[in-house]
Amino acid sequence: MESSQFVLASRPIGMPSSDNFRIEKTMLNELQDNEVLLKSWYISVDPYMRGRMNNVKSYAASFEVDQPIRGGIVAKVTDSKSKLISTGDTVVGMLPWATYSIEKAENLRKVDTQKVPPGYYLGVLGMPGFTAYFGMMEIGKPEKGDTVVVSGAAGAVGIVAGQIAKMQGSKVIGIAGSDEKCRILKEKFGYDETINYKTSKSLRKEIGELCPQGVDVYFDNVGSEITDAVVANLDFHARIALCGQISQYNNTKPYTGPSILPMLLTRSVRLQGFLVSNYAVRFGEALSHLTQWVNDGKLKYTETIIQGFDKLPDAFLGLFSGNNLGKMLVKTE
Amino acid sequence: MESSQFVLASRPIGMPSSDNFRIEKTMLNELQDNEVLLKSWYISVDPYMRGRMNNVKSYAASFEVDQPIRGGIVAKVTDSKSKLISTGDTVVGMLPWATYSIEKAENLRKVDTQKVPPGYYLGVLGMPGFTAYFGMMEIGKPEKGDTVVVSGAAGAVGIVAGQIAKMQGSKVIGIAGSDEKCRILKEKFGYDETINYKTSKSLRKEIGELCPQGVDVYFDNVGSEITDAVVANLDFHARIALCGQISQYNNTKPYTGPSILPMLLTRSVRLQGFLVSNYAVRFGEALSHLTQWVNDGKLKYTETIIQGFDKLPDAFLGLFSGNNLGKMLVKTE
Repeated sequence: MESSQFVLASRPIGMPSSDNFRIEKTMLNELQDNEVLLKSWYISVDPYMRGRMNNVKSYAASFEVDQPIRGGIVAKVTDSKSKLISTGDTVVGMLPWATYSIEKAENLRKVDTQKVPPGYYLGVLGMPGFTAYFGMMEIGKPEKGDTVVVSGAAGAVGIVAGQIAKMQGSKVIGIAGSDEKCRILKEKFGYDETINYKTSKSLRKEIGELCPQGVDVYFDNVGSEITDAVVANLDFHARIALCGQISQYNNTKPYTGPSILPMLLTRSVRLQGFLVSNYAVRFGEALSHLTQWVNDGKLKYTETIIQGFDKLPDAFLGLFSGNNLGKMLVKTE
Repeated sequence: MESSQFVLASRPIGMPSSDNFRIEKTMLNELQDNEVLLKSWYISVDPYMRGRMNNVKSYAASFEVDQPIRGGIVAKVTDSKSKLISTGDTVVGMLPWATYSIEKAENLRKVDTQKVPPGYYLGVLGMPGFTAYFGMMEIGKPEKGDTVVVSGAAGAVGIVAGQIAKMQGSKVIGIAGSDEKCRILKEKFGYDETINYKTSKSLRKEIGELCPQGVDVYFDNVGSEITDAVVANLDFHARIALCGQISQYNNTKPYTGPSILPMLLTRSVRLQGFLVSNYAVRFGEALSHLTQWVNDGKLKYTETIIQGFDKLPDAFLGLFSGNNLGKMLVKTE
């Protein structure tokens, strides 16, 4: 059976472009025992995938040139030689960027798309949601009365992180890249205050004004100047959940700025860099809590859905321009 | 009764000089109930005191201009109106840089100078020892087989930190500022390897060669380029005990360098800035362990003792040139 797939055509240097991707036809093998045939439905594009396009030692193996890009995908089962998963089921897994693919059933998880949109399993009920959950609950540990700042607040992780902090009784300030995002964060997602970093005259001063007692928890998705401005406002015993550095992923030279260590020292700050995979044995716990909160209406979510399998590179590149509100997804049909 | 004391003559900008200190005569009051008259014996000079010379929000109150500098002092009791402390006792406390002073007995701790040199209560059995103990045991948490790097390894804290890591079964690498210091660290204090950062052609490369599995624990007393070089070699799940940044204390502009956050993120590094006072309720535990180790000969120590009360500013300034091996002290007589 024929499938279309995107492979890594070349490793990007700096900002990727569509030239780094190539779409090609491939023939799938016959289904073997315990395998299922999958039709990709919702395909996730995530900032962390930029790191896998480099050929450097990192937490995840690099993508190989001329091999398919792989990521989180919600797919429909169109054929099955598995006793665990049947034709007609919907599953989520780490799969190639392909219209059709074959996977062992043991690497897939069946999902219920009756109560929540299928894309949620790539967002609030998937890796980004787990990331927000563990980063906030295990590292940030916001308490009632704390002040929490989230950068990349309107992104797939940030939207969830802020709401979780809010549930703990904290005051939550979001930093995002447009007035529209800021408005929605306050109106729909319960953020107390927001800052549009693109129009702020002095981010450091503005954060100081919104956080007169200092910042107790900083959930960082962005890095660079935004992080410098937050760090300058940290309170004693602040916690930094270092989740992402999207502003730096396409740098050919590292961002250079004032050392943050004197502040982290004199304020007794705890910083923890983390990957969601560090908490893999506890994903069930996260899924259980997040599902409950979504079902109860306590945790809201939103997606930016791009239509068409061939739009995958554009959707991915759009992450670095902040084109998404909430989770960025490609819907294949 | 007349005493001589050093006051802060002016706040330094950048590197302090002797002009920032002024010696003056002062008259002590009559002893009141519960007070003791103290003759300063060993006076501690510490890098953290530089921060207190600035007029900025920090963990410790600033020194006031025209008021005495205060710090750790071992003193002899020459008169007493206290039932707790008698004439002839030796005590340690936070006292003015003065030849004589009066203090309430409740703010002093009696020390035994029979088994260990009196200065040890300002070093391995005092604040620097406690700092090394909590930074290494509570934050660094080195394990058998781990690789531990200590910057400022030949300083009052670093010498202890390295030996504590060694006791846990780790391989310990010290970074110091002279070949002589490096030699002594290996010969006397059990460091496995050392690097003289002043003569190293590539600190980053040299650390990489000495730590082929990566650095598991970094105990940082120094900051700036030295820390950048260690961070580039961190292993996954490394811990940074952020104890001091002596290279930055006299900067008028913050040190500017490549962001360390991408490394801390992708390696899932935990960093904790800390002050020894965070652990004040547990000082007894630290003192008990450190005293035992010293008495058992497991923990060695050394001091650089400058003779003469009037040398206090010189001794303090010498900290920033690395003039000390181990604890820098002034002995008044």
